[in-house]
Amino acid sequence: MKPFDVIGLDADDTLWHSEDSFHAGEQKFVELVSPYVSEGIDVKAALTAVERKNLHSFGYGVKAFGLSAVEAAVTISEGRVPTEVIGRLVEMVRAQLTEPVRLLPHVPEALAAIGRHYRLVLITKGDLIHQTFKVETSGLAHHFEHVEILLEKDPSTYRKVLHNIGVAPEKFCMVGNSVRSDILPVMALGGTAVHIPYPLLWELEHVEHDEHFAELESISQLAEWLTES
Amino acid sequence: MKPFDVIGLDADDTLWHSEDSFHAGEQKFVELVSPYVSEGIDVKAALTAVERKNLHSFGYGVKAFGLSAVEAAVTISEGRVPTEVIGRLVEMVRAQLTEPVRLLPHVPEALAAIGRHYRLVLITKGDLIHQTFKVETSGLAHHFEHVEILLEKDPSTYRKVLHNIGVAPEKFCMVGNSVRSDILPVMALGGTAVHIPYPLLWELEHVEHDEHFAELESISQLAEWLTES
Repeated sequence: MKPFDVIGLDADDTLWHSEDSFHAGEQKFVELVSPYVSEGIDVKAALTAVERKNLHSFGYGVKAFGLSAVEAAVTISEGRVPTEVIGRLVEMVRAQLTEPVRLLPHVPEALAAIGRHYRLVLITKGDLIHQTFKVETSGLAHHFEHVEILLEKDPSTYRKVLHNIGVAPEKFCMVGNSVRSDILPVMALGGTAVHIPYPLLWELEHVEHDEHFAELESISQLAEWLTES
Repeated sequence: MKPFDVIGLDADDTLWHSEDSFHAGEQKFVELVSPYVSEGIDVKAALTAVERKNLHSFGYGVKAFGLSAVEAAVTISEGRVPTEVIGRLVEMVRAQLTEPVRLLPHVPEALAAIGRHYRLVLITKGDLIHQTFKVETSGLAHHFEHVEILLEKDPSTYRKVLHNIGVAPEKFCMVGNSVRSDILPVMALGGTAVHIPYPLLWELEHVEHDEHFAELESISQLAEWLTES
């Protein structure tokens, strides 16, 4: 059994589907807005550019995406987008904020198995109301000793979380789908991280790196990985 | 000296101005959207109705306000609002999210004075990125042992916070401008609360009650109130 006290788990795209909804939202945006955009403009790329520009002031999550989508619809159509499309974009945000949680395969069993041997904490970022809604309705909350919803996942925010829950980095293992947010900052602190990729990754989460870390295909393999010596 | 271990302080409209910006945003909305609305419609009331409807799914804060403003502009104008106005509404959100913090009078001295005798925690609700930005740029962060940004301020979220920071309700005193969010839920747990009103209060924070609690005109009176026996 690996010498950890606490296992940290990311939520979006690690415990439940998330990026596929954003991906569908982007496709819907392209479909709704393209008819009003001059030829030769890459509508999807223009939306991502607006999201990138706004990341610093809007942050992560569905409401930030929605405001960027509204802004992008107006600017890239040079004001030609009809207000009916603007209304549909806000509707899309509301639908995404209230859609039921869709768990990834094997998640409840995997949490139950590792929860018998380790303290579990959920460490996620994004929109406070959306993440809280998802945790509360997921049926998974009872597995976690602690839930942290962070503005950003970087070494300094992880350091604060580990301090709050009283665990040294070398006794901590983080599990998640994003190398940028779940793996590299934890390794930078001297902790361990396990990567479980999700088929989709948001463009602004892409990162170049040459670190080595464990990678699993499914969370169902986590308990076994943790018991290997 | 009062027998408290921890003083909790609200942030918006207790340490720094906030509601005046929302109020200005509402007035700007009325000014921008009214020309496209049928006669006899109360534009401000219609905006508040949309905010109320969305509170459950959008939550508190500037991004929630912005999305509601966009939705309201489209619906109450029956689609007649020009996209240029929609773009100005998104700009308004961005400006509000990035405007410098404006401290209320006497706040730094008051925190320094009470911080000599009590552990201070900041307990606020709203948008994660906006509240974090304000705390970090306020110049006040060093006074606080802990910062909690909550989705909602009710007895159950206060109970969790008090548990996390290790203080019993009877040893805790909360200070803030909102009777609904800062006073009543803390009293319901058996804690103490001090009301310091701000000249403006958001309509959705209004509450009817017949509780009795201490009320101060300014945070500059807090240290003295705490030393009274």
